[in-house]
Amino acid sequence: MTDRSAIRNRHPAPPPADAPPPAAGGGKPPPLPRLHRRLDLATVLGLSSGFLLVLGALLLGGRVAAFIDIPSILIVVGGTTAVTTISFSPSDMRAALRALGRTMVAHTSDPQAAARTALSLAEHVRANGPLSLQPMARATRGWPVLNRAVELIVDGLPADDAERILRTEIEANIGRARTAAAVMRRAAEVAPAMGLIGTLVGLVQMLGNLSDPSTVGPAMAVALITTFYGAILGSMVFSPLAAKIDRNAEREAMVDGLYLLAAGSVARQENPRRLEVLINTVLPPELRVTAYE
Amino acid sequence: MTDRSAIRNRHPAPPPADAPPPAAGGGKPPPLPRLHRRLDLATVLGLSSGFLLVLGALLLGGRVAAFIDIPSILIVVGGTTAVTTISFSPSDMRAALRALGRTMVAHTSDPQAAARTALSLAEHVRANGPLSLQPMARATRGWPVLNRAVELIVDGLPADDAERILRTEIEANIGRARTAAAVMRRAAEVAPAMGLIGTLVGLVQMLGNLSDPSTVGPAMAVALITTFYGAILGSMVFSPLAAKIDRNAEREAMVDGLYLLAAGSVARQENPRRLEVLINTVLPPELRVTAYE
Amino acid sequence: MTDRSAIRNRHPAPPPADAPPPAAGGGKPPPLPRLHRRLDLATVLGLSSGFLLVLGALLLGGRVAAFIDIPSILIVVGGTTAVTTISFSPSDMRAALRALGRTMVAHTSDPQAAARTALSLAEHVRANGPLSLQPMARATRGWPVLNRAVELIVDGLPADDAERILRTEIEANIGRARTAAAVMRRAAEVAPAMGLIGTLVGLVQMLGNLSDPSTVGPAMAVALITTFYGAILGSMVFSPLAAKIDRNAEREAMVDGLYLLAAGSVARQENPRRLEVLINTVLPPELRVTAYE
Amino acid sequence: MTDRSAIRNRHPAPPPADAPPPAAGGGKPPPLPRLHRRLDLATVLGLSSGFLLVLGALLLGGRVAAFIDIPSILIVVGGTTAVTTISFSPSDMRAALRALGRTMVAHTSDPQAAARTALSLAEHVRANGPLSLQPMARATRGWPVLNRAVELIVDGLPADDAERILRTEIEANIGRARTAAAVMRRAAEVAPAMGLIGTLVGLVQMLGNLSDPSTVGPAMAVALITTFYGAILGSMVFSPLAAKIDRNAEREAMVDGLYLLAAGSVARQENPRRLEVLINTVLPPELRVTAYE
Amino acid sequence: MTDRSAIRNRHPAPPPADAPPPAAGGGKPPPLPRLHRRLDLATVLGLSSGFLLVLGALLLGGRVAAFIDIPSILIVVGGTTAVTTISFSPSDMRAALRALGRTMVAHTSDPQAAARTALSLAEHVRANGPLSLQPMARATRGWPVLNRAVELIVDGLPADDAERILRTEIEANIGRARTAAAVMRRAAEVAPAMGLIGTLVGLVQMLGNLSDPSTVGPAMAVALITTFYGAILGSMVFSPLAAKIDRNAEREAMVDGLYLLAAGSVARQENPRRLEVLINTVLPPELRVTAYE
Repeated sequence: MTDRSAIRNRHPAPPPADAPPPAAGGGKPPPLPRLHRRLDLATVLGLSSGFLLVLGALLLGGRVAAFIDIPSILIVVGGTTAVTTISFSPSDMRAALRALGRTMVAHTSDPQAAARTALSLAEHVRANGPLSLQPMARATRGWPVLNRAVELIVDGLPADDAERILRTEIEANIGRARTAAAVMRRAAEVAPAMGLIGTLVGLVQMLGNLSDPSTVGPAMAVALITTFYGAILGSMVFSPLAAKIDRNAEREAMVDGLYLLAAGSVARQENPRRLEVLINTVLPPELRVTAYE
Repeated sequence: MTDRSAIRNRHPAPPPADAPPPAAGGGKPPPLPRLHRRLDLATVLGLSSGFLLVLGALLLGGRVAAFIDIPSILIVVGGTTAVTTISFSPSDMRAALRALGRTMVAHTSDPQAAARTALSLAEHVRANGPLSLQPMARATRGWPVLNRAVELIVDGLPADDAERILRTEIEANIGRARTAAAVMRRAAEVAPAMGLIGTLVGLVQMLGNLSDPSTVGPAMAVALITTFYGAILGSMVFSPLAAKIDRNAEREAMVDGLYLLAAGSVARQENPRRLEVLINTVLPPELRVTAYE
Repeated sequence: MTDRSAIRNRHPAPPPADAPPPAAGGGKPPPLPRLHRRLDLATVLGLSSGFLLVLGALLLGGRVAAFIDIPSILIVVGGTTAVTTISFSPSDMRAALRALGRTMVAHTSDPQAAARTALSLAEHVRANGPLSLQPMARATRGWPVLNRAVELIVDGLPADDAERILRTEIEANIGRARTAAAVMRRAAEVAPAMGLIGTLVGLVQMLGNLSDPSTVGPAMAVALITTFYGAILGSMVFSPLAAKIDRNAEREAMVDGLYLLAAGSVARQENPRRLEVLINTVLPPELRVTAYE
Repeated sequence: MTDRSAIRNRHPAPPPADAPPPAAGGGKPPPLPRLHRRLDLATVLGLSSGFLLVLGALLLGGRVAAFIDIPSILIVVGGTTAVTTISFSPSDMRAALRALGRTMVAHTSDPQAAARTALSLAEHVRANGPLSLQPMARATRGWPVLNRAVELIVDGLPADDAERILRTEIEANIGRARTAAAVMRRAAEVAPAMGLIGTLVGLVQMLGNLSDPSTVGPAMAVALITTFYGAILGSMVFSPLAAKIDRNAEREAMVDGLYLLAAGSVARQENPRRLEVLINTVLPPELRVTAYE
Repeated sequence: MTDRSAIRNRHPAPPPADAPPPAAGGGKPPPLPRLHRRLDLATVLGLSSGFLLVLGALLLGGRVAAFIDIPSILIVVGGTTAVTTISFSPSDMRAALRALGRTMVAHTSDPQAAARTALSLAEHVRANGPLSLQPMARATRGWPVLNRAVELIVDGLPADDAERILRTEIEANIGRARTAAAVMRRAAEVAPAMGLIGTLVGLVQMLGNLSDPSTVGPAMAVALITTFYGAILGSMVFSPLAAKIDRNAEREAMVDGLYLLAAGSVARQENPRRLEVLINTVLPPELRVTAYE
């Protein structure tokens, strides 16, 4: 096939410094995206500085202890957890907890590194055949969709089937993230409601017992604390984390979509240059990759 | 037909321990999914622990009796029921009550068990012909869509017609669940409104009668109780249950969709392996079934 | 035509007891759905019991007269009417009033009776030709879409044109109901706003005149009454009625859709059994009709 | 062409009394819809009676002057204008003002009169050729889309191009109305927020200066006045007018759509009877026109 | 090619005064849209007059200092920033800041000037060939999409590819603007919540310490200041700016869409008159351009 040999003969452009060149032949597997497991600074710093600011406000008033009330914590935190659980299944709740963890410490998925991996994968298969990817199957376990794409290439599945399988996988990932975000969003609605319920309990108890006016102030202060907890939980924790989970899922789906493109391209035995064009159509302009001049 | 005999001759992979193997021949009907009628723990525990927490808060204040006021219960619970009824028909209300029951005690529909049933059904028909399913028609009464699918296979309806009929049935199920969830959601909106109306009644009565200041507190406490009831009903009961009904319906529709796939596949006399691929496209990755290697 | 004569020769299955058999021949027109003009119990009972509960709460306080304040009624009821009118045309407002009436006293449209009428219509035309429907045109005036369908069949319009005309008619009905529901929904938003405005007027007047503290309570009670009226009107009247109008329109559109199916089927000279299948695809499973075995 | 001459020979049905008959020949231009420039009574009466009711409530309290506070007017009316301007361009604001005017005094667009104009236009061109419309171009300036349609017919543009141009024009009209409604809707959100801000300013000033309790009442009354203004502006003015602008735009788009149908029909040299059918598909049933029996 | 030479021979209509005529030949590059970098008056005046009005209200009360409270500023401004950051990535936050800047000082994109540039570009290429645009590549750097379009024309990419690349670029621009608007919208939700949290902190501290009634007023005034800040930030700053960013993005996408049309038209070697028609279909009627009679 002339087209194919022409491609083999041309030398790919030197890759950017931080990515090894696509293997032009031989058994060396294509480079993997580096696995970073690091703190998501935006989330961690945002949450902690938000809480520090509120703590500072409490300290300024000099009475932090007045804001710690175990029954109030129980009714708001416990109640929010209980009521949120009603709407979901135990496995949904676990998935939400896992997604919560991933908003703090995440495998960062750099779209550009993923694009380069996808390209060098296609290049590698073109030079060495699909079976040469077999050793990569184990090395890619950290990236489920990439791993699955490698397996499908090694198995030699038709392009349409491989793409459909990977798309289901990506959609299942998005679906799981949506459920986790829905759990958070529900909690963000429930928390202020539990705070209001706690405050109403406190108000009714105080009002039914107005004989000693000197107790009105402190009793009302305690009653308001659940509203305070509910506002903190809802507005500073659950609501922003729900939005974060959604954004992370979108980003991950974009990265995983690159592996889907690569698997389809390889199965169709297309020229990797075509894959580069396809990938650049999906990536935002500032992240475009140019492996070929 | 070579394709067909090839399938008959191959032995299916040994099924997982908890599912009988697809019958390779003979009259033994394919295994049914186990019928579990058990508590939905997430709903029951969520609801009861939520209420226990609120009860605990009342007990801490030492005045539980102050929170029980029959007229307030009547105006909030009765009013919510009455006003919700306006928007619906009596049959909608009954359907909502039934759906409410199913959020507590449910036939659990395990997607994986359903997938295995669908597969062994196809395998069975392939080996023994559609009429061999006749004894199953009665045994599947607990699962309306599965039951209907078996009937349609026995009747020998064309694939397109069978699929259309089953799809209408599944959509009607979803529609009923949506109506039930809409009733709950409406009630979740009405309950706090009735609480507010009750509180306004109490406030106006108290304010018009301010001569004795010592009665202000208790009167206002009573006035606030309807707001408390409305918040409890809306935020802790109706709103989460509406979400639960929706989620249950989605899950059930996914499971019923597997029977639709099976009925269509059987009517088209497709290879059960093809059905397995189709089913795995619908199931989330972690629930995929592998009857064939 | 062999197909046609075959149909004529077969005897239709005996119809259910409460529906006359499809006429196999002769000039007897097909049975009409019974015209019920009866109270919509869900609406009437819901509204009246809701109001009775609130009235009961007022009576318990012993001061019903305190809740009747003519200026407050004027500002809330009159203001809501006036402000709602701004967004609509006089004809929209009239349509909303008519729709309001129909939520109380309705021609009930039983989908199953309509399905049987549609089927017997098709059967009748098949046996006696389209012109035999002419006497029905007058008898069906109570059901505008059925009436129009009969006219179109008698006129012998092509199926596509008849369907398009009937679809426009059904969509216009839905559109009118949507407008009526929009009027109600707008009123449900305006009523609490007018209540708030009334309360603000009362509060400002009271606060500007604090010299005599003994008048504060009663003045504030009067100020709160408009909020009370606004909540009652918005939450107990307009909002549930808007939802009811939407639901009634959906149900009516489903029923009218059956006549559209019948008109198209007759114009295409299809076998009525085919129409039965079509109708059963539209009807929810529990309402399916079986005129033929 | 036999079809054409047949049409020419038949006499159209006598038109309704208030519309001149379609010219069967000769140079007399087709009748224009009457140009009414009249008050939109629903808007004007709704707004004025709403304000009168509020004024009545103020007069009942006997202290209208207490409700007029220039700084409060400045902060609510001025602030709402300023903050709304941020989100839009000066031309958007001007368009919103013009649309506001049209909600009071409007060219009423009677769909039926427009339908008759469209039909007689088609009839006229069929009888006298497209160039005979030239004198109409000037007379139709009051209706931009009709005017444009006439121009396109005279220019002899192909049907597809004429329809595309007119559709862009109609969509641009709708787009302008949407922008104007968006300005109103934004103002309806900003007004209560400015009212709240004004009230907070008043409250903070009053609370920081509690030494003389006798001033608390009047100060708080003044503080509440901005909330009152915000509620009036948002709920009684901007929000209903936004809805009105949207409804007017829909109605105008339906009327202009009739001229588009006419232009396309004329350019395709279709029989006007076909145009009548098309027009009646768009018009709601109660407005259908019948120029031909 | 006769069509082409015909075009070359005709003299284009004289362009409007403020745009140089499309070059009929020679090396002179087509005119660029003037680059205005000027204040967006609607935004700047709206914001500043809004703040001046609030400041005026403070001055009227004579106690501006009472409204400046550093801890309150920290908790509302800092807390809003922190909590908003949680949901986004640092790069999203930077993009939002840049978009914020562009709502004040903007390259104004005049659609009409852009349309003329697009047309003269097509005319120029038709007369001088695509390579004659090379010198323009540098001059258009201020308009990224125009710049990219020129590059793609010079490179001679097929029309479909050029259009796809430019569409991705335009969509990426819109996507970035949406993210920036989402950041603003999130901040607009968070700011009042932080205000409420600050007020709750103040209330609880005050109520727990009611011994000296004379401090209640000032303490409550301070507590309310965070609510005031939250309302100002949310309703007067973030919410209107989010809407502005969205509107600017829409406008820019329309302008950039004209360059896309031009690039596609040039790559397809279509007659520029066809491009004019296309452009006028996209532009609102009042902005249409007529380069040819």
